[in-house]
Amino acid sequence: MQLFYTPDIAPHLKSFVLSEEESRHAVRVLRMEAGQQVQLVDGRGGLYTAVIVDAHPKRSVLEILRVETRYGTRPYYLHVAIAPTKQIERIEWFLEKATEVGIDEITPIICERSERKEVKVERLNKIMAAAMKQSLKAYIPRMNEPLGFGSFLDQRTEGQRFIAHCGDGDKQYLSEIIEPAGRYTVLVGPEGDFSGAEVDAAQRAGFFPVTFGASRLRTETAALVACLEAAIRNRRY
Amino acid sequence: MQLFYTPDIAPHLKSFVLSEEESRHAVRVLRMEAGQQVQLVDGRGGLYTAVIVDAHPKRSVLEILRVETRYGTRPYYLHVAIAPTKQIERIEWFLEKATEVGIDEITPIICERSERKEVKVERLNKIMAAAMKQSLKAYIPRMNEPLGFGSFLDQRTEGQRFIAHCGDGDKQYLSEIIEPAGRYTVLVGPEGDFSGAEVDAAQRAGFFPVTFGASRLRTETAALVACLEAAIRNRRY
Repeated sequence: MQLFYTPDIAPHLKSFVLSEEESRHAVRVLRMEAGQQVQLVDGRGGLYTAVIVDAHPKRSVLEILRVETRYGTRPYYLHVAIAPTKQIERIEWFLEKATEVGIDEITPIICERSERKEVKVERLNKIMAAAMKQSLKAYIPRMNEPLGFGSFLDQRTEGQRFIAHCGDGDKQYLSEIIEPAGRYTVLVGPEGDFSGAEVDAAQRAGFFPVTFGASRLRTETAALVACLEAAIRNRRY
Repeated sequence: MQLFYTPDIAPHLKSFVLSEEESRHAVRVLRMEAGQQVQLVDGRGGLYTAVIVDAHPKRSVLEILRVETRYGTRPYYLHVAIAPTKQIERIEWFLEKATEVGIDEITPIICERSERKEVKVERLNKIMAAAMKQSLKAYIPRMNEPLGFGSFLDQRTEGQRFIAHCGDGDKQYLSEIIEPAGRYTVLVGPEGDFSGAEVDAAQRAGFFPVTFGASRLRTETAALVACLEAAIRNRRY
C-alpha cells in the first residue's frame, strides 16, 4: 500500500487533506483514485490507514479508517553525535541506514579535526523521511543543529554516554556495556579521529571509551555499527 | 604511512618494483622520494614494510624491510550471496562497508525477482581494493562471478548456511545461532525478497531462515547487518 509522510496529521482527525505536492504525486504520478486505501505516517509514531474520498490533484481528501499510535516503538533511545564527513554523501547514507536499523536523535558535532564545519539540516531531514517511508517506520529521527564538540559536552545528556575513538587506552565493546532498554549517547569523531584533548574532555564529562573492534572504520561506518550494536543488544527487550 | 595494494608481491621477495600506475602515483602525485617508507598489502594477508630506493616515476624500486603474513586474520569465514541491487551504487557501498567490517567471499546471485541480472566484477573488485587500503587490511574479499539462485544452491558450501528473508515462518537471529570461529554462508535476496519457491528450495538445501529484526531492511543493509553480526559474535575468539 502507498505510504505518505504527513507530519501535520494527528490521531484525533477523522479526515485529512494531502498537501499539494503529495496530492499531485498521488493523483498525477501514482494515478490513484477515490476508494483506494493509503497509509500515512506522522513521524511521531502514528500510522494511519485511510481511503481516498476525493482524488483531487492539488488537495486530495482522505477519510481516516484506523490509527495506530506508537507504531514500531523501540525499547531504547539512541542519540548519535557525529562529526560530519568531508564527503556529505557519507553522512547521508549513514542517516538512511541508521533510520532503517533504528536511531532516535542525531547531532552533528564540529570537532578539532573536522574538515566540514556545516551541514544542511533540511536536506538531511528529507533523506531520513525517505528512509522512514521505505523501511515502513512511523518515527522520524530528530536531527539537531550542528554544535561545537565542547558545546555538546556542556549539554546535559541522559543515560549512558560513550565516545568511540581509535586511540590507545582501555575500551569496551558497546554491545557489552549498554544496558537494555536504556538511553545511550555515542560520540563518533571525524576522519582523523578525535584529538587526545577531546577524548580527555569527553571522559571527564562522563563518556566511556568504546571500540568497534580491530578494524579501522570510517566515521559513517562506526556510527552505523553503534546503531546496530544497540539494536542487537535490545532485540530481546 | 602510504599504503599500496600490490597483488604481485610475495613474502620471499627482498625488493619490489611498483607498477607504472603506482609509481606515477607515488612519485608524481604523492611526491615521494628515495628513503621514504611505504606499506604494501598483497590482498592475501601479507603486510609489507618497504623503503623507496629509486623513486622512478614509471618503475619505483622498493627494498622490503619487513613482512607480516596473515595480517589481521579473522577467526571466521563469511560468504555472502547477494542479489545485486537495481541501483548498483547500493551494492558498491555494501562492498566498501563489508570490507571494512569483515567479509571473505561474495557471490552475486540472480533471483526470480532480480531486476538487475548482471554486475561488472572488475569494478566491484576495485571498490573492495580501495576499501581494503582505507581500512588497513591485508586481505581482499573474493568476488565470484554471478550465479543463478538455483546454481548457487547446487554448489557445495561448507559450514553453517542461512537464508535471510522477510516472509513468515520461524526464524532465528544470526548472531544467536552462528558458532564462533565457523564458516558461514548467508543468502540475501533482491528488492521484493526471495520468492516462496526460492525460500523452500534453500531450506531443502540446508539453509536455515534468519531474521535481522522487525525493520524492513534494504538488500544492501541486510547484507551488511549479516557481516556485523558475524563480526560481533566472533569478537572474543
